[in-house]
Amino acid sequence: MYDQIIDKNNPDSALKVTKGVENPISINQNYLKNVRKRQELTVDDYVKGILEGNRTILARAITLVESNLYKHQALAQQVIERCLPHSGGSVRLGITGVPGVGKSTTIESLGKMLTNQGHKVAVLAIDPSSERSGGSILGDKTRMELLASDPNAFIRPSPSAGSLGGVARKTREIIILCEAAGFDVVIIETVGVGQSEVLAHSMVDFFLLLQLANAGDELQGIKRGIMEMADAIAINKCEGKEKERGELAASNYRNALHLFPPTESGWKPKVFTCSAYENNGIDTIWKTVMEYVDMTKKTGYFYQNRNTQNLRILSESINQALRDNFYQSEIIKEKLELAKDDILDNKISAYIIAQRLIDEYFESLKTK
Amino acid sequence: MYDQIIDKNNPDSALKVTKGVENPISINQNYLKNVRKRQELTVDDYVKGILEGNRTILARAITLVESNLYKHQALAQQVIERCLPHSGGSVRLGITGVPGVGKSTTIESLGKMLTNQGHKVAVLAIDPSSERSGGSILGDKTRMELLASDPNAFIRPSPSAGSLGGVARKTREIIILCEAAGFDVVIIETVGVGQSEVLAHSMVDFFLLLQLANAGDELQGIKRGIMEMADAIAINKCEGKEKERGELAASNYRNALHLFPPTESGWKPKVFTCSAYENNGIDTIWKTVMEYVDMTKKTGYFYQNRNTQNLRILSESINQALRDNFYQSEIIKEKLELAKDDILDNKISAYIIAQRLIDEYFESLKTK
Repeated sequence: MYDQIIDKNNPDSALKVTKGVENPISINQNYLKNVRKRQELTVDDYVKGILEGNRTILARAITLVESNLYKHQALAQQVIERCLPHSGGSVRLGITGVPGVGKSTTIESLGKMLTNQGHKVAVLAIDPSSERSGGSILGDKTRMELLASDPNAFIRPSPSAGSLGGVARKTREIIILCEAAGFDVVIIETVGVGQSEVLAHSMVDFFLLLQLANAGDELQGIKRGIMEMADAIAINKCEGKEKERGELAASNYRNALHLFPPTESGWKPKVFTCSAYENNGIDTIWKTVMEYVDMTKKTGYFYQNRNTQNLRILSESINQALRDNFYQSEIIKEKLELAKDDILDNKISAYIIAQRLIDEYFESLKTK
Repeated sequence: MYDQIIDKNNPDSALKVTKGVENPISINQNYLKNVRKRQELTVDDYVKGILEGNRTILARAITLVESNLYKHQALAQQVIERCLPHSGGSVRLGITGVPGVGKSTTIESLGKMLTNQGHKVAVLAIDPSSERSGGSILGDKTRMELLASDPNAFIRPSPSAGSLGGVARKTREIIILCEAAGFDVVIIETVGVGQSEVLAHSMVDFFLLLQLANAGDELQGIKRGIMEMADAIAINKCEGKEKERGELAASNYRNALHLFPPTESGWKPKVFTCSAYENNGIDTIWKTVMEYVDMTKKTGYFYQNRNTQNLRILSESINQALRDNFYQSEIIKEKLELAKDDILDNKISAYIIAQRLIDEYFESLKTK
């Protein structure tokens, strides 16, 4: 029976339901009935459940957000709208680093420490490759066993949407749902390659870069500019004889960061060593995040940054829609490749051909 | 009489004309007559003059490119189209650094060295602030006296167009004209603040960042990411007791760059000290540029990069035109501010409001 109600993306949903039964305050019997019968929930059901912190409902709402069915999308949008006023109350922490740097171990240690302190921790992931790779991060449930079974933690793999933009949107919407459900720390895990960390950075308050001391930078494959997005760099796996190399790497990074002008926030990025495996320096991570939050809330940058992020979504969504409409228009499709050839042959200036395509495009819209 | 034909942006154009008279091979008497009478030149006149390396005609063609009058624009575009097949033959070198770092002195030393080696050097500038500030770079003719009076050098201040995009376009078009006129080294000077160096970087083969040893990085105001655009960093003004500090700074920068993965080109950015004032290390700049050009021409990256730059102009011009049309549409103007307020009040999701605005926009285009 429970199988029916286990959300496969959410290994502990079944557990929650049983918990729900044991503890009627935490979960409304009607939802449970709905859940058991897998009945369609109404917008009210979803919103009420989420605001009550019902994890099963939250998991189902997220599944709704992730669904590409139109009717699910429409329902999801209403749920999100209703949750929006209750969102924003968490610290949004981005954690990036290449595979093998120890993201999962770090997140598990950090997450357990926070739940022990009474925090409610949601762990999400951005991994546009997950569709192809079958979910390279957070996919493996065994990787965060302790945290996964923690009633105050909620772990969710990356939505495997086709496009980066799709993943970004779904993740942002899931953050809203998690915050409305009372999670006060939202950790966004992302693999430190490609565009995923730029997306993560665009939706978090604090961005932590995990590095290794014992790997050349090529191996660590930091994209140019990622180091500059980091509010802190933690050299992980600094245990045993790696400690020394870790300290050396840390001072190198400090020198490098010193060469950059101060960040927009006025915050000077911190560099420190840690060992998630030995649970060393994990407290430093959180101490640093709190320092940052306190400072930026005093200066107002914290809120200003979130506003900037929201307005950027508006303009980016608009620009994306405008581009899509242009490049998918028939008249453009057939002419664009020829235009490119002419440009590469130095036959015509890119500016002129651009203007011609634009004129023909808008002409075609009128007669649509 | 010569006053008439002096292009005020081009202090040495009068000189060239006289030279022209003295040396009939270099300049066709008919042009000269045209020039003297300040008659309108035809497209053929312009193209023939430019291809013959007539600097007065070149200067007038550039003035045409910079003009915002429609009839000049139309004429300029035809000239550019005709010059395009003859362009691309130069090494395009971007030089950036904050005011006071010694850009002009460096460019003059480098330029004189190159003309002495038989190169023809054009020096252009990108400075979007020039309209407001009255032209902060290359504006002051006295700053490059030697180069300005060198028959194998051509110096032109920044086009003072309103928008960055405008400046970028005019500069790109001026590069084409200069190359068609036989200049085999085109130096783009830009002040190392704001967006200007991103533009410069988008139109050059090699990007040189000038730094000072004796200034904190805040003072040097390198924008985040600029150091990463640099193919070489030259610590300038390393003379006398500054030498030591210069070497220290250089090794710091080397360490910092070492932390970044290799560039797209596979080139490892070089760091060295120089003194444009004492004419030390200027040869190193050119040696480094040549190494880069040789390497990237072997790998093919040199050409691939130019193609990428050209295709980027196409997509950026298109995207800009699409955005302008949207944001300038009446229906959007009146609704956008309200939309932003609702987003900042968490009343509605930026994604949803974006979709609504887009739908209304395209609806309005049909009925236009």
